Amino acid sequence: MSIITLLTDFGLADAYVGVMKGVVLGIAPDSQLVDLSHRVPPQDVRAGAFLLMTAYAYFPAGTVHLAVVDPGVGTERRIVAIRAGGHLFVGPDNGLLRWAVDRAGGAETIVAVENPAYRLSQTSTTFHGRDVIAPAAAHLATGVPLGALGPPVASLTGNPFPQPQRRANALIGEIVYVDHYGNCITNLPHPAPATTATTVEVAGRRLPLVATYAARQPGDILAVTGSSGYVEIAIPNGNAAQRLSLTTGTEVVLQP
Amino acid sequence: MSIITLLTDFGLADAYVGVMKGVVLGIAPDSQLVDLSHRVPPQDVRAGAFLLMTAYAYFPAGTVHLAVVDPGVGTERRIVAIRAGGHLFVGPDNGLLRWAVDRAGGAETIVAVENPAYRLSQTSTTFHGRDVIAPAAAHLATGVPLGALGPPVASLTGNPFPQPQRRANALIGEIVYVDHYGNCITNLPHPAPATTATTVEVAGRRLPLVATYAARQPGDILAVTGSSGYVEIAIPNGNAAQRLSLTTGTEVVLQP
Amino acid sequence: MSIITLLTDFGLADAYVGVMKGVVLGIAPDSQLVDLSHRVPPQDVRAGAFLLMTAYAYFPAGTVHLAVVDPGVGTERRIVAIRAGGHLFVGPDNGLLRWAVDRAGGAETIVAVENPAYRLSQTSTTFHGRDVIAPAAAHLATGVPLGALGPPVASLTGNPFPQPQRRANALIGEIVYVDHYGNCITNLPHPAPATTATTVEVAGRRLPLVATYAARQPGDILAVTGSSGYVEIAIPNGNAAQRLSLTTGTEVVLQP
Repeated sequence: MSIITLLTDFGLADAYVGVMKGVVLGIAPDSQLVDLSHRVPPQDVRAGAFLLMTAYAYFPAGTVHLAVVDPGVGTERRIVAIRAGGHLFVGPDNGLLRWAVDRAGGAETIVAVENPAYRLSQTSTTFHGRDVIAPAAAHLATGVPLGALGPPVASLTGNPFPQPQRRANALIGEIVYVDHYGNCITNLPHPAPATTATTVEVAGRRLPLVATYAARQPGDILAVTGSSGYVEIAIPNGNAAQRLSLTTGTEVVLQP
Repeated sequence: MSIITLLTDFGLADAYVGVMKGVVLGIAPDSQLVDLSHRVPPQDVRAGAFLLMTAYAYFPAGTVHLAVVDPGVGTERRIVAIRAGGHLFVGPDNGLLRWAVDRAGGAETIVAVENPAYRLSQTSTTFHGRDVIAPAAAHLATGVPLGALGPPVASLTGNPFPQPQRRANALIGEIVYVDHYGNCITNLPHPAPATTATTVEVAGRRLPLVATYAARQPGDILAVTGSSGYVEIAIPNGNAAQRLSLTTGTEVVLQP
Repeated sequence: MSIITLLTDFGLADAYVGVMKGVVLGIAPDSQLVDLSHRVPPQDVRAGAFLLMTAYAYFPAGTVHLAVVDPGVGTERRIVAIRAGGHLFVGPDNGLLRWAVDRAGGAETIVAVENPAYRLSQTSTTFHGRDVIAPAAAHLATGVPLGALGPPVASLTGNPFPQPQRRANALIGEIVYVDHYGNCITNLPHPAPATTATTVEVAGRRLPLVATYAARQPGDILAVTGSSGYVEIAIPNGNAAQRLSLTTGTEVVLQP
């Protein structure tokens, strides 16, 4: 039984996600379907890319990851299918898949999903998730080889995951994702070794880097190495993003 | 492994949907459960009917579609099970299932779900989704024949899907569903043939009918044939319903 | 195929739930995963406990119930696994599991989940749901005996489900949960026998206890025995919590 994960900005109010699952199960009836998230902010390709990058590796090798955050649907942007690090990825070639593929060691094979035999017979101009991406993912799950889906592509479009910059002794990073608790996740990797003198500066505040949410009192602002391996700004049982007006792109400085 | 889809207005904050799935799996443990939506606006039977009508056909024949938007729970309204076009439908007889059944070619068989052998032994007056509809759907998925669930019913209650009216050369329709992007879906089918002179009038504006969201610039208002086959009013990467104050029932006129 | 239910306060915007499912499926690939709710209000252990208590029994015996509402993550609070009434429960020992376990007849066995062989090899300080609880639940689903996960624990922490108090002839209870319709569920069990003279007092109003939402007109406020077996304050097709400013803890008095 193959696992297929789904990541979209379709929301859960409409039946768009359910329809994609119907298409998948018509082709690959024994699939195990797992939602990563369908509440990526509409058209926010970077938020989707971050979620996929930090989630895919917790699934077994052979998992097919289907992702649709696709502001360019109906334009010339390609739909691609990729093998990387034992995982398969299918989605628009707009940067959405790139951070996960890079994290997985880079693409071993990329193809453009163009073979009409592996899409729905009627293809709309507005819902390629249903008509092209879901069928491709399902066919891959049943064992169709990547190369059957279309011609090879040399490389993915989009920018790599932003790396923090070194300035003197400090590391200059930014907030790359705000989660539903208001925890602000940066691109600053956990410093090794971290000392008790290690601090994090954000929005004019200097915070100690601590080991766990429980290290300070509820309501305190703290910097902690989060579960994704990056430094997070958090308020235990509170909302750091709201209280400090933090958002993606806000600068965060690590002083080791 | 049978597929059972679920469509409700129960929301996702409570455990009502999970409880229904527990009931289903106790009866039909090998089912593949797929959520269509649980965020139908509370008691909005027409919104639920629209989602089911546009979604069911993407599932394989033999799928059981379980639907609960049931403002009349505890009254005399019937619970029905229906075979139509190779699909099975179970839910309250209040119009929720009708548009899908009509689209599937009309009901071949309708029964009232009344046989106590196929419901939970304790039946509440407020949660027939759990006590009656989920067990019936699960038993159908295991192969129980429709006729075992209860006596035949001649026809469904509720109105058919609203058809646009012809006025001179124009087609007068209305918005029937607003999705989470703010795209407004009408009951106007794609005109064939559409020409570059085809326009759509809504809220005092006259819009060209274009082929894809990408045909105009972000922020522009456009009319497009959406993925459900009907004309939609949309703003690429924006919210048309909010910007134009459109809602279900708003008149939309197609000028071929 | 074992069933594993999931109940968390992780929300659905991020990929935290999906990641836990990936971990489960890597260990127990044939599991049937069912979401109870992921929209427990952040850190609201009592709301999570109520949902689990009222939902678990609708699943077949042998189901593993995984729950994470864990304001104390990273502190000394234990992760426990419990057998009770034929069901298995895994989560933090902070009261979250207790009401369900009590309802199931009390714990037959409790263990502290400490054996490193049954957790992820790298354990974070902030996401024990992924690193400890999901692997433990998955191993239980594959048949690993409870005792293998860690040493026995004598009893659970946390308070029992609050019981109403008797005052003269009346029963003094409180609202324990507000659902997404605004229905306010109390800890007052259905009175037996209820008579037409039975009334419910809340927020200065005296309401008759009726049998079904349909017993009065839309917009009326009523008290009804809800699907969980407790008296609820509800407005048919309306929101009782908002209209009467009711919240958890509000006193409700049953006059038989």
